[in-house]
Amino acid sequence: MTVTKPPFDLRALAFNCSLKSPEQPSSTAVMLGHVREALALHGVDCEIVSAAGFNILPGVRSDEGLGDDWPALRAKVIASDIVIIGSPIWIGQPSSVAKRVLERMDAFLSEAGEDGRMPSYGRVGAAAVVGNEDGAHHVGAEIYQALNDLGFTLAANALTYWVGEARTGREYRDLAPVPESTADATRMMVRNAVHLARLLKNAPYPGKDVGA
Amino acid sequence: MTVTKPPFDLRALAFNCSLKSPEQPSSTAVMLGHVREALALHGVDCEIVSAAGFNILPGVRSDEGLGDDWPALRAKVIASDIVIIGSPIWIGQPSSVAKRVLERMDAFLSEAGEDGRMPSYGRVGAAAVVGNEDGAHHVGAEIYQALNDLGFTLAANALTYWVGEARTGREYRDLAPVPESTADATRMMVRNAVHLARLLKNAPYPGKDVGA
Amino acid sequence: MTVTKPPFDLRALAFNCSLKSPEQPSSTAVMLGHVREALALHGVDCEIVSAAGFNILPGVRSDEGLGDDWPALRAKVIASDIVIIGSPIWIGQPSSVAKRVLERMDAFLSEAGEDGRMPSYGRVGAAAVVGNEDGAHHVGAEIYQALNDLGFTLAANALTYWVGEARTGREYRDLAPVPESTADATRMMVRNAVHLARLLKNAPYPGKDVGA
Amino acid sequence: MTVTKPPFDLRALAFNCSLKSPEQPSSTAVMLGHVREALALHGVDCEIVSAAGFNILPGVRSDEGLGDDWPALRAKVIASDIVIIGSPIWIGQPSSVAKRVLERMDAFLSEAGEDGRMPSYGRVGAAAVVGNEDGAHHVGAEIYQALNDLGFTLAANALTYWVGEARTGREYRDLAPVPESTADATRMMVRNAVHLARLLKNAPYPGKDVGA
Repeated sequence: MTVTKPPFDLRALAFNCSLKSPEQPSSTAVMLGHVREALALHGVDCEIVSAAGFNILPGVRSDEGLGDDWPALRAKVIASDIVIIGSPIWIGQPSSVAKRVLERMDAFLSEAGEDGRMPSYGRVGAAAVVGNEDGAHHVGAEIYQALNDLGFTLAANALTYWVGEARTGREYRDLAPVPESTADATRMMVRNAVHLARLLKNAPYPGKDVGA
Repeated sequence: MTVTKPPFDLRALAFNCSLKSPEQPSSTAVMLGHVREALALHGVDCEIVSAAGFNILPGVRSDEGLGDDWPALRAKVIASDIVIIGSPIWIGQPSSVAKRVLERMDAFLSEAGEDGRMPSYGRVGAAAVVGNEDGAHHVGAEIYQALNDLGFTLAANALTYWVGEARTGREYRDLAPVPESTADATRMMVRNAVHLARLLKNAPYPGKDVGA
Repeated sequence: MTVTKPPFDLRALAFNCSLKSPEQPSSTAVMLGHVREALALHGVDCEIVSAAGFNILPGVRSDEGLGDDWPALRAKVIASDIVIIGSPIWIGQPSSVAKRVLERMDAFLSEAGEDGRMPSYGRVGAAAVVGNEDGAHHVGAEIYQALNDLGFTLAANALTYWVGEARTGREYRDLAPVPESTADATRMMVRNAVHLARLLKNAPYPGKDVGA
Repeated sequence: MTVTKPPFDLRALAFNCSLKSPEQPSSTAVMLGHVREALALHGVDCEIVSAAGFNILPGVRSDEGLGDDWPALRAKVIASDIVIIGSPIWIGQPSSVAKRVLERMDAFLSEAGEDGRMPSYGRVGAAAVVGNEDGAHHVGAEIYQALNDLGFTLAANALTYWVGEARTGREYRDLAPVPESTADATRMMVRNAVHLARLLKNAPYPGKDVGA
């Protein structure tokens, strides 16, 4: 395995979209910690942001005014090569916090340049999903579609996840060790995302020919 | 058409899950106004709540503590026979505000009685969805699944909606008049929801036999 | 528990939408067997149809012509009070066979009477979903939305399901005994569906006032 | 715009997943024709396959035996650099034919090499969706998630689509000319997919280090 050692040459940003305040134990936080470790082995520095700890105002503009924490978070998105949405599963669906983060990136659509490229272009998106039971693929689907519509690229197997058996109550954060199949999915997701982010950094999407 | 005249014998609660603050013009608000008018013709009093104007804390308990506006809204849900989720479409998905409202009702799962019936049992759910373009059926699907999992019953054709042609920007609130097909869907949704709510009020779900 | 003894007063139809041919072992078949047992205790006679064993032609008309087995299956739908879609989960989504069955009921939309009521009106829909891992709620959501749009009513908790832990390979048909929580969900789904089907049989949706 | 002239250096395969037989007029076919024209301008040869004209047996193995047309279609997938799922929208969801095609690629999961790479790795996926009204983003989401889980990579804006206004009945094949915004989405989808396919062809995903 060719591992780029620090100093890091790529940056990742992971949104922890747990409903919990940052100081509470969170399975999503534990999984994103595993993602960050895997990213570091590939020379990628990953910052994890606990979205519920910020005041991300409702809206679809890049700045919703007084008290809005989104502009600072948006700057982190733009400064990153890889963006990961980490979401718990509630009622089989992404968390309202994940939806809020994605919604705020809707502004990218109207911020596309004349060449059709949004501010997010060239960035690689991914998803990390945990729940007691059931829902990871659908949460992945919602995140994939939102990220892709908003200009992100999805490497093969852009999802790592864990869920327990139906109608049971185990927590990812209590698993020791993490099941090997999920650890493997995390490494695969990270490996592919990093590979693609490097390709796109060196060879950006051309955009439409504005001279035409 | 047998119309129960006021005094109303049923109550409905509609959540306007627009991202906008209550004083801004909102297509979701306009559609919920139409739903309310249709409900009134059937003897149902409908209160519309602008969810974005409340401080609904993240979480899945019925009371998330200091400053949480959900407990008062939850009381309105419990006092209603029909609950309508009115959501705009963003990135083809329900709004983060709609997700938050549904998420808070997740607590019903752990509040089911010994007989398996949640506090929501016997209530009829419905959805009213508007967007510039595309996404109404999927937003309906997400709302249906959440409401149904959380104990609500869905009458036939539990969705009324309007969306414009792909990649255009018209707004439901600017349509005059409302297209007859959408007006018809609104009336049908309301007629069926009211019929079912009356049936269930008179003959509640039995729940499991706790003496067994 | 008030149990109506046979002779049965209601009829249910369950589509087994497994990809397997009828003679192969199928977890969906096992689960539908459990649903049928629960229905019988409530006085409901349930026929299970292995959809993959029929030639259901692609299309959205009630009869797609020579060799189409759908017309006979459609007649069974119309003769039933409760219709259950039993689907395995593949790639986190409903099976192509389940999609085909739902698609053929799309014709109900154009077969609505002047009063707006489709041939399906008054019938109660439900879903029974099994998979190795992950996807039941989303498969439920897709089935709910399709059935509801096509005129079926959904009782509270219209889904029973089982899935294993993430990325494992257990099968529902090998579980002995069935986990109590899933058995409980099956009984609840059946109890509610039967209650609602009896209410709607005695008091059908009124439809729009065609004399108006 | 740098356009690679024929001889083509990349190959694309588009599945027309219309429910119609190949000789019937199909909006999906018309849209895929537009996709093929755009691909040709980028030096990509695109074959369009009318899936409903083949006998794709139900199942999740690469060969389901006697009479199965999938093995030949699978060979076309493997010989392609870009794979496009063209689906109509029925009941707001992908067609049963699209589901069948995706389901058959489920076999890739068990055909991954020791290094974790599926036979699909390195290929770029995309979606082209048309309907009378509503559903394109969700159909896109289902296709994205299936393709991505099955090893395909998704370039930014991997969907082109058209739908009409809610509850109307226009057809993409009758639009003349195609709305510029949809034509623009088609070109963008194609431009990005081709760019990414070239990158991945020259620099494949590494897979896990099997010597480790």
